[in-house]
Amino acid sequence: MSQISYVNGRYVFQKDASINVEDRGFQFSDGVYEVIAIFQGRLVDCEAHLCRLTTSLEALKIVLPCSMKVLKFILGKIILLNHIGNGTIYLQITRGVAARNHAFPAKNIKPSLIVNASHKGPPSDKAISDGVRVITLQESRWNRPDIKSISLLPNVLAKQEAVEQNAFEAWFLDTNGCITEGSSSNAWIVVNGERIITRPLGNEILGGIARQTLLKVAFKANFKIKERAFSLKEASQAEEAFLTSTTSFVMPVINIDGKTIKNGNPGPVSLHLLNLYRDYVFNEGA
Amino acid sequence: MSQISYVNGRYVFQKDASINVEDRGFQFSDGVYEVIAIFQGRLVDCEAHLCRLTTSLEALKIVLPCSMKVLKFILGKIILLNHIGNGTIYLQITRGVAARNHAFPAKNIKPSLIVNASHKGPPSDKAISDGVRVITLQESRWNRPDIKSISLLPNVLAKQEAVEQNAFEAWFLDTNGCITEGSSSNAWIVVNGERIITRPLGNEILGGIARQTLLKVAFKANFKIKERAFSLKEASQAEEAFLTSTTSFVMPVINIDGKTIKNGNPGPVSLHLLNLYRDYVFNEGA
Repeated sequence: MSQISYVNGRYVFQKDASINVEDRGFQFSDGVYEVIAIFQGRLVDCEAHLCRLTTSLEALKIVLPCSMKVLKFILGKIILLNHIGNGTIYLQITRGVAARNHAFPAKNIKPSLIVNASHKGPPSDKAISDGVRVITLQESRWNRPDIKSISLLPNVLAKQEAVEQNAFEAWFLDTNGCITEGSSSNAWIVVNGERIITRPLGNEILGGIARQTLLKVAFKANFKIKERAFSLKEASQAEEAFLTSTTSFVMPVINIDGKTIKNGNPGPVSLHLLNLYRDYVFNEGA
Repeated sequence: MSQISYVNGRYVFQKDASINVEDRGFQFSDGVYEVIAIFQGRLVDCEAHLCRLTTSLEALKIVLPCSMKVLKFILGKIILLNHIGNGTIYLQITRGVAARNHAFPAKNIKPSLIVNASHKGPPSDKAISDGVRVITLQESRWNRPDIKSISLLPNVLAKQEAVEQNAFEAWFLDTNGCITEGSSSNAWIVVNGERIITRPLGNEILGGIARQTLLKVAFKANFKIKERAFSLKEASQAEEAFLTSTTSFVMPVINIDGKTIKNGNPGPVSLHLLNLYRDYVFNEGA
């Protein structure tokens, strides 16, 4: 974790970074967030993240409490103040502080803006070559996971269930037995050689920025790509599976619900895609 | 709002009542809460609320950071310090402060405990005689609304939708067209004279304490009661409708989705039940 945080206009030591207990983010999870990777001090896919942030804010009718230019300045300053080379930045915006009442405050209040940073870099080569295990759980979340809100309790419980089952991630299953996404990542499979499958955008999944970027670089590299729903059964029998997120990049999945995918090693397509994604991050994305 | 709040061992002015930005309640809505009515300085149905709090904490595997005896002492002290006669107390417990990571922290951390109070008393006679309008919305919440968690964004958006449609509350509809409950209250109808209907307990609704108490006093007064699901159609054609909550007591519903219930006035059964509930609160419940 960073030592210096930004909270509502002030740069403060993390231990002193606090918000009022009547912040609606704390009482109602009435807010949104973004996690952005930092590579060599630069933000990866910053524009895409801030574009999604704008969409999330609009969905909740929260107004960005500063200009986008000022927000970018703050992000840059937090990176500098914390001497982050490779890591991530976390920003959270809530509706602000008001006497507790479910409905939006009648009077306009100033939204809260918090920015933190972390030195935790991308997954190591060891982590990649090990791959990860995932479990599946029935979809339990509200009907708008496409909004990147802080209303994350179902995600927390799913991730914890995964950890307790010695897995890295939990993939949610919709009522048709198809995988929506992970608790904090998007889900992919590889079938019939280089045909890459991931669920299309919709209310059921968050439009991951790593997902979007990977689609772009894979397309550019002439991979065959299909955005469609896929079932747990199909995933279990796939040639490869992997997940994407800002912090996990492209992470091979070697086991789903205790069943090994193929020979249990990260597959060549996954590793090829990871290399493309890394190239993008290292050369263009920042 | 009260002037004095309790936050993690300290009694502080409300404006200074703050928690760290890495409190999991703020970043993940990883916590629970209770609202308890205060009548003449005494807590109404305190044992029932603290019993439900225990159930919510167990569901999330959060440990109460003090003994129940100490918690009761804190509640009493907040009432005294704020000179509350009639009002409500709000208490919130989160998993505590930890570096951001979806899964529970590997190391045990101390949960956060916050207590506030408000001077806002029960609904006025005018509010009761006016009754309220409700709208219905498709159920949008996660699959465990029976846990009284602070993951309330869907409830916030539903309540706001109600307010924008000039209504007091939004009732959620399940996939069968049956009403589950309101965004912050339980739903009831009266059909065939004095037959009172409310949805049975289950994962789809919060077990309201006002609901539980009303069932008890209505049964004692020999009302016919049936706990079963009811549809929007049935509610629209009911003789009466009302909602219950800690802050609304028994509130007559006079209009659903723009359709007036009967003659548009609070019905005799609702008012009778309100009187029974008030009697309980004034004489026994505290």
